[in-house]
Amino acid sequence: MSEVYIIGHKSPDTDSICAAIAYANLKRATGENSAAKAARAGEINPETEFVLNRFGVEAPELLENAAGKKLILVDHNEFAQMVDGAEEAEILEVLDHHRIEFKWANPILFHTEPVGSTSTLVAEKYFEKGIELDEKMAGIMLAAILSDTVVFKSPTSTERDKEVAEKLAKIVGVDPQKFGVEVKKAKASLEGKSAKDIIRSDFKDYTFGGKKVGVGQVEIVDIEEARSRKQEILDEMKRMTAEEGYDMVFMMLTDIIQEGTELLVVGDEDGAVTRKAFNAELKDNSVYIEGMMSRKKQVIPPLEKTMS
Amino acid sequence: MSEVYIIGHKSPDTDSICAAIAYANLKRATGENSAAKAARAGEINPETEFVLNRFGVEAPELLENAAGKKLILVDHNEFAQMVDGAEEAEILEVLDHHRIEFKWANPILFHTEPVGSTSTLVAEKYFEKGIELDEKMAGIMLAAILSDTVVFKSPTSTERDKEVAEKLAKIVGVDPQKFGVEVKKAKASLEGKSAKDIIRSDFKDYTFGGKKVGVGQVEIVDIEEARSRKQEILDEMKRMTAEEGYDMVFMMLTDIIQEGTELLVVGDEDGAVTRKAFNAELKDNSVYIEGMMSRKKQVIPPLEKTMS
Repeated sequence: MSEVYIIGHKSPDTDSICAAIAYANLKRATGENSAAKAARAGEINPETEFVLNRFGVEAPELLENAAGKKLILVDHNEFAQMVDGAEEAEILEVLDHHRIEFKWANPILFHTEPVGSTSTLVAEKYFEKGIELDEKMAGIMLAAILSDTVVFKSPTSTERDKEVAEKLAKIVGVDPQKFGVEVKKAKASLEGKSAKDIIRSDFKDYTFGGKKVGVGQVEIVDIEEARSRKQEILDEMKRMTAEEGYDMVFMMLTDIIQEGTELLVVGDEDGAVTRKAFNAELKDNSVYIEGMMSRKKQVIPPLEKTMS
Repeated sequence: MSEVYIIGHKSPDTDSICAAIAYANLKRATGENSAAKAARAGEINPETEFVLNRFGVEAPELLENAAGKKLILVDHNEFAQMVDGAEEAEILEVLDHHRIEFKWANPILFHTEPVGSTSTLVAEKYFEKGIELDEKMAGIMLAAILSDTVVFKSPTSTERDKEVAEKLAKIVGVDPQKFGVEVKKAKASLEGKSAKDIIRSDFKDYTFGGKKVGVGQVEIVDIEEARSRKQEILDEMKRMTAEEGYDMVFMMLTDIIQEGTELLVVGDEDGAVTRKAFNAELKDNSVYIEGMMSRKKQVIPPLEKTMS
């Protein structure tokens, strides 16, 4: 039986890594797919590293190229975000919670729901199938839910995420709120990271109206520390437009305490796209937007609408 | 609360109509959506009429234009097959068993699985949620499964379709095989139907490599009766390429007894597409292909591959 790789998006975040591990474990536990194996499409970020260490779970294998492989995609469905070589892979299944842009010539199991994290859907499948959860699996899924929903503060967060997180927190024996802050802090410091690391830690590519657009997001707890790094981050974003073919690059410095985002923009020279999409005026390539927390819900839909 | 229309594809077949009725009934029964209402995107075909009459179920309301409406799509997900105005509607959910070609700017509940009919998925949801099925709902879903799987003979048919059909057949008190033949016969006669009716009774539009392609299918029990109508059907197909913008039109006359298809083709003048896609040689615009039963599994994937 050839291996089936369960894999999240490029520049993987905690949900992409933890949902892959937990879903592969479930497929093996139910006997549905004994060849299921978690994989990752890029480097582990510091938050995810903290989570895996905390529960003693190994990072999944890095899959550099998926050509010719069998894949189950978690936490994404757009080709632009898939592991390299995915266009020459066989996609067996998709489990996700994002907007949909997908095409496949055969019928497959494709399941997306508007909840706050893919791990919520994976955990629900454990409950439905009556598969027991140990502290490791419960812990990494709990951390992924808390991360993706910004401890339930993101507008993408739903009651289902909360309910599932509470059940998982009981298994782990932690308080979800307190544990959430612990998880977020692991990622929230910019200290010791280069501008490139900051941008690339959670970065996604899109195509809007034929233009190549990149949108990165980093969560912070100290807006002043972030602002002091602004010029350096903008220089790296400018380099990306000059050398890596991006027409526009957006970088969200999201303050999870104040609940707002310092949005850095390169490639929108007269500020027209930012003005139309976010009703906000750029000054020196940036603007603070109160209440902006979610790339998926508050940035991508207006950008796509404006640019298409 | 504004109405939510649960609706299948254009040129609706029995699965599109019956899945819509049964899923709307389920949404109301569970209280998940008291505003759910079945609708249809076109005329009821004779097979579906037979099924609805047999169980005393009313046909859903015809929705001529969906602009501005809220929709739940069943049995399709491609924009080319949706009710008119769907591009200006709000799509809340998709439940389907076909290949995927879909794009939506927000996360929604999107659920496809590779089973033989959408009604199989709807019936499983009744079982999962423990909602009791009466003879009417069980009967129309059973008929839809038997129709879409060609009484389990189609290569798209799975063990799950059989298991669900057996449960439903017990509720209705019929033998699935015998009832299946009864259902198929209702559609299998070409008598009294014009060439246009025959083509349009189950016809779908596709875009392959920028070309507009139409593929119709009719199930028959008497291949000689069908062959005697061949010239008339070809003339109508030629009119469609001349007047309706089709680059190619395929018509499958599928013999459900012999398990093969007389494939009629217009627009493939040197026969190259048919040769490459089906390894078959056209003679006077047609060829009999042994074992060809399923448009979705045996016609669309090779056509797309050849033409893209």
